[in-house]
Amino acid sequence: MNTHPIPMVEVHRGPLAESLHSGHAVLCDASGDVIQAWGNPDQIILPRSSAKMIQALPLVASGAADARSLTSAQLALACASHEGAPLHADAVTAWLADLGLTDDDLRCGAEPSRDKDLRFEMIREGRKPCQVHNNCSGKHAGFLTLNQHLGAGSEYVEPEHAVQLAVRDAFETVTDATSPGYGIDGCSAPNFATTMHGMARAMAFFASAGGRGDGLSKAAARLTEAMIANPEHVAGQGRACTLLMRAAKEPVAIKTGAEGYFIAILPNRGQGLALKITDGTTRASNCAIAALLVRLGVLDAGHPDVKSFLNPEIRNWRGLLTGDIRPAPSFP
Amino acid sequence: MNTHPIPMVEVHRGPLAESLHSGHAVLCDASGDVIQAWGNPDQIILPRSSAKMIQALPLVASGAADARSLTSAQLALACASHEGAPLHADAVTAWLADLGLTDDDLRCGAEPSRDKDLRFEMIREGRKPCQVHNNCSGKHAGFLTLNQHLGAGSEYVEPEHAVQLAVRDAFETVTDATSPGYGIDGCSAPNFATTMHGMARAMAFFASAGGRGDGLSKAAARLTEAMIANPEHVAGQGRACTLLMRAAKEPVAIKTGAEGYFIAILPNRGQGLALKITDGTTRASNCAIAALLVRLGVLDAGHPDVKSFLNPEIRNWRGLLTGDIRPAPSFP
Repeated sequence: MNTHPIPMVEVHRGPLAESLHSGHAVLCDASGDVIQAWGNPDQIILPRSSAKMIQALPLVASGAADARSLTSAQLALACASHEGAPLHADAVTAWLADLGLTDDDLRCGAEPSRDKDLRFEMIREGRKPCQVHNNCSGKHAGFLTLNQHLGAGSEYVEPEHAVQLAVRDAFETVTDATSPGYGIDGCSAPNFATTMHGMARAMAFFASAGGRGDGLSKAAARLTEAMIANPEHVAGQGRACTLLMRAAKEPVAIKTGAEGYFIAILPNRGQGLALKITDGTTRASNCAIAALLVRLGVLDAGHPDVKSFLNPEIRNWRGLLTGDIRPAPSFP
Repeated sequence: MNTHPIPMVEVHRGPLAESLHSGHAVLCDASGDVIQAWGNPDQIILPRSSAKMIQALPLVASGAADARSLTSAQLALACASHEGAPLHADAVTAWLADLGLTDDDLRCGAEPSRDKDLRFEMIREGRKPCQVHNNCSGKHAGFLTLNQHLGAGSEYVEPEHAVQLAVRDAFETVTDATSPGYGIDGCSAPNFATTMHGMARAMAFFASAGGRGDGLSKAAARLTEAMIANPEHVAGQGRACTLLMRAAKEPVAIKTGAEGYFIAILPNRGQGLALKITDGTTRASNCAIAALLVRLGVLDAGHPDVKSFLNPEIRNWRGLLTGDIRPAPSFP
């Protein structure tokens, strides 16, 4: 078995492939078996924000989401790495208010909005970024909702806190493996490790959940539906997850993660896909996930939003075309 | 001979090496021979902004710099990827005025200042970025100075323009090889390709130039001295080139380039070093150049500014330590 990452993406400038990106990817079926692997399916990884729908499972499976009558858009926000645009920040602020909480109860940290208009407006007005602008604030609103339901303490991101123990339990169930450890994520929550195969298996669990009646599967099906129904809430204007979900020829939940991670959940096929770019760059993971989904027939290479990630132009400060990013010749 | 890039840098989070970066590096002596190579010395690359001191050679060798009485700081700016702080933008504006030219005569394109205070001030005041804020504006002021001396046309970045023909000639002389082609750089000038060995050979040409009397060698020695004497002009506050040059235990000119490139010129040893991170990431090229220069005894691993690139902490939005970047176990 191949244990090395394989070439996935090239960055061309003039006559040269100036930079190269390699990675691992696994496609699993509903039974958790590998349909196809690129690179090493046993590679241990941190799925980062690609695991957000797993981290949201206890919120739904516990009954906390229904007790608070969370909407489909709120469930999508719980799975989001949003850009902190007014759409997202205002929704999280309102959600916190419904819980009787404020920005101060979040533990994700303050992050400048990635929405340029809002960011510039806040700079002009001398306003500091808030925690609701953090790309993970929807996930944390979900954690706080679960936390109220459980009646546990305020430090809900600590690895031994009831919220995170519930997340770990769900994570190990859907990956069907004991997690070998965790890293602390950008938003201060633990991010559990698994193999590439484990993550693809978890995504296939989500993709096939609609056909099963257990609580975790019902939660997985609802979260998948919520992501597919609310692509703008999952990321935002011009972002890969949002645009690729909208461009898809069949229902698909697509979610990026830091350090070059990406997943896709394909409910019509009961299949799950996981991708890691070894060097952690987003330009490469955007291209490679698009290439994989084109190969699977989920995306059309000719769609302009697909091309903008599959084969984006590189333009310089004067707007001149200087190169492009493209899948490696042998991939996928 | 090894033709693959070798592991150079790891990004750790929790118990895992989450992301990995590979690359090529070559160290050459004054005769142009390889002292040591990591990865493939025959790999063809674009040196990007690491070639700026080569692109400035005709400015000095032609007599244009002396005809305009350019200072050592201006020669350093001609070799710079500066952050567009007031120090840099004001100096380029004054330089253009000395030539009877304005921002409009530049062809590098407008780029937002990378100096946060100035960038925020310009956003608050509704001012648009200018071409002098482009990190390459010093190089372009040098091109314009040479251009006036040559009496050629205004489009000095065109590959067949007299300025760029002079640059290509100098590039092929110091790399001691015919360039196999060029890409158009972020600043619209052609960036000539060579091998890793060719680039290290060129840097050894600069490092050993002080002992030779020909015009190109005298120009190379002056530019090297200018970079070493003015580290703040070469990059700026908190930037790797500036801080590592200042921290060095012996004179060294250090210059980054886009897409993971780096060079070092070691005049005391007559040696030149070239580095390319295959995936093009700056976090990895910063770490790898620091590791190489520690290994050569040029930098002290215990110096805080060296550690900030050799082994930087990764902190999250709440300021918690979540990981670190470090050289791969076998490197260098």
